[in-house]
Amino acid sequence: EAELMVAHGIDDILLANQIVDPKKLQRLARLQRCARVVAIVDCEEAAVDLGAAAAAEEVAVPVLVDIDIGMHRTGTPPGKPTLAVARTIAETPGLQLEGLMGYEGHILGLHPPDEKGAACGIALDMLLETADLLRSQGLESATISAGGTGSFAITAAYPGITEVQAGGGIFMDLLYRDAFHVEELDFALTVVATVTSRRAERVVLDAGFKTLSAYHHPPHPLCRDDLVLDYLSAEHGVFRVAPGREGPKLKERVELVVGYSDSTTFLHDRLVGVRNGCVERVFDVLGRGLVT
Amino acid sequence: EAELMVAHGIDDILLANQIVDPKKLQRLARLQRCARVVAIVDCEEAAVDLGAAAAAEEVAVPVLVDIDIGMHRTGTPPGKPTLAVARTIAETPGLQLEGLMGYEGHILGLHPPDEKGAACGIALDMLLETADLLRSQGLESATISAGGTGSFAITAAYPGITEVQAGGGIFMDLLYRDAFHVEELDFALTVVATVTSRRAERVVLDAGFKTLSAYHHPPHPLCRDDLVLDYLSAEHGVFRVAPGREGPKLKERVELVVGYSDSTTFLHDRLVGVRNGCVERVFDVLGRGLVT
Repeated sequence: EAELMVAHGIDDILLANQIVDPKKLQRLARLQRCARVVAIVDCEEAAVDLGAAAAAEEVAVPVLVDIDIGMHRTGTPPGKPTLAVARTIAETPGLQLEGLMGYEGHILGLHPPDEKGAACGIALDMLLETADLLRSQGLESATISAGGTGSFAITAAYPGITEVQAGGGIFMDLLYRDAFHVEELDFALTVVATVTSRRAERVVLDAGFKTLSAYHHPPHPLCRDDLVLDYLSAEHGVFRVAPGREGPKLKERVELVVGYSDSTTFLHDRLVGVRNGCVERVFDVLGRGLVT
Repeated sequence: EAELMVAHGIDDILLANQIVDPKKLQRLARLQRCARVVAIVDCEEAAVDLGAAAAAEEVAVPVLVDIDIGMHRTGTPPGKPTLAVARTIAETPGLQLEGLMGYEGHILGLHPPDEKGAACGIALDMLLETADLLRSQGLESATISAGGTGSFAITAAYPGITEVQAGGGIFMDLLYRDAFHVEELDFALTVVATVTSRRAERVVLDAGFKTLSAYHHPPHPLCRDDLVLDYLSAEHGVFRVAPGREGPKLKERVELVVGYSDSTTFLHDRLVGVRNGCVERVFDVLGRGLVT
């Protein structure tokens, strides 16, 4: 995906997954000739390997240390362990230490806002205090990257954070609205399905999990309360008609807000851009399937 | 997908979803000139529309009535309602009634085998009794189609069933093995992932739900019991190392059996065919993304 973005003119990218495969490290190093692609590293071994790839290609790779600020997925523990990895990066030829990256993914679902804000602050403070520790040791910490769509309002305003990684927010979805309480953004991504079978109290759409996905959150019909999702199978979306309502007829189209836009965009080859009810542009999803 | 299959030489297809969109009906009718593509219908309105499309293209479309044998998804109720739709099909110019299609999807998870066999028999008997009713009225019922991978052993052996719709069984998966108790088939589809982050008790693979999917059933590492799935996020598979075990190292590859092969095959552009440890052929997944 990073190669594709660079080929299409995006020249400043944070590749927020640690790369360890030798061939991918080589590709990442080569990409530096065309654009600034910042890598992340969460252990010394990965730093050494990345440095070797950079040196072999005679490039300098900008690097952030991936630090675990409470989500416990990837990342170095805050404080001294992060300092040790940062020092390795700073001392490794071919690598250019730029700062830190964290992700407060564990706080996204907290509510009400003050509780979420407090937990977010605790996580971001781990990041910022470790950045200060690095600075006190003469190590670079210009870039402090964090956040996602579920926390962007808090994280973007937090003093000391220089970069926010919110991405899904461009489309919004029901997970962000219902589970992460993001109220500032509108839904921009929908799937249009057709009623292909109709019984008195049951409506079947031609969109199942192959079209909608639903791993994190179920979809919901847009602007209509007469349909209740029963279940999604591979190619069928099965809905119950709400009591006392008519529901859509056979052949009628139903527009669905997706549950989690990340789960939908990688399924499709094209997105249709609609403004004021008119198709304005069809976007090819060029990155689809580029997982290796 | 049917058009693609016909273009690649498959000339006898059951399109097991009811088509209602006028443009798709036209495409389905035109496809008859190149191959036998059997349509299904579960209401008179759909039969009339399909007949009109067939007549406009001057073709005869072979049709099965989709009958609900207990799953309550699509399909006409057994008995007289199915007879009424079958009669409409038989009387509609452009349509050629061939028989019935059902799917006993509601019984797949039953266990032990005798309980499953009994419930499957009840469902298939609804199909067969309705077929007899059609025959008694002089209506064609040569094709009696049912089943899936989770019931193929029972359904394929059931007297009177002429066709089984098992498809996923070509790959097998953990859903079929663990939830549907299919013991006769081996796993043929795996995803190879790389350890991209490693802590004492935590292993992160570069395969999350974008690569593995997991909507119906979680994946599991093949032939290794030292990893327990914690969760899948979009691009990370997070596993705990089993107590007292070492687990894989950073950069090590882990092969995963997928949870539900239907959920995996539509994500990828290519499948790599391996026999005796050697890559024998790379298959392009030509049907991927063909949802309209």
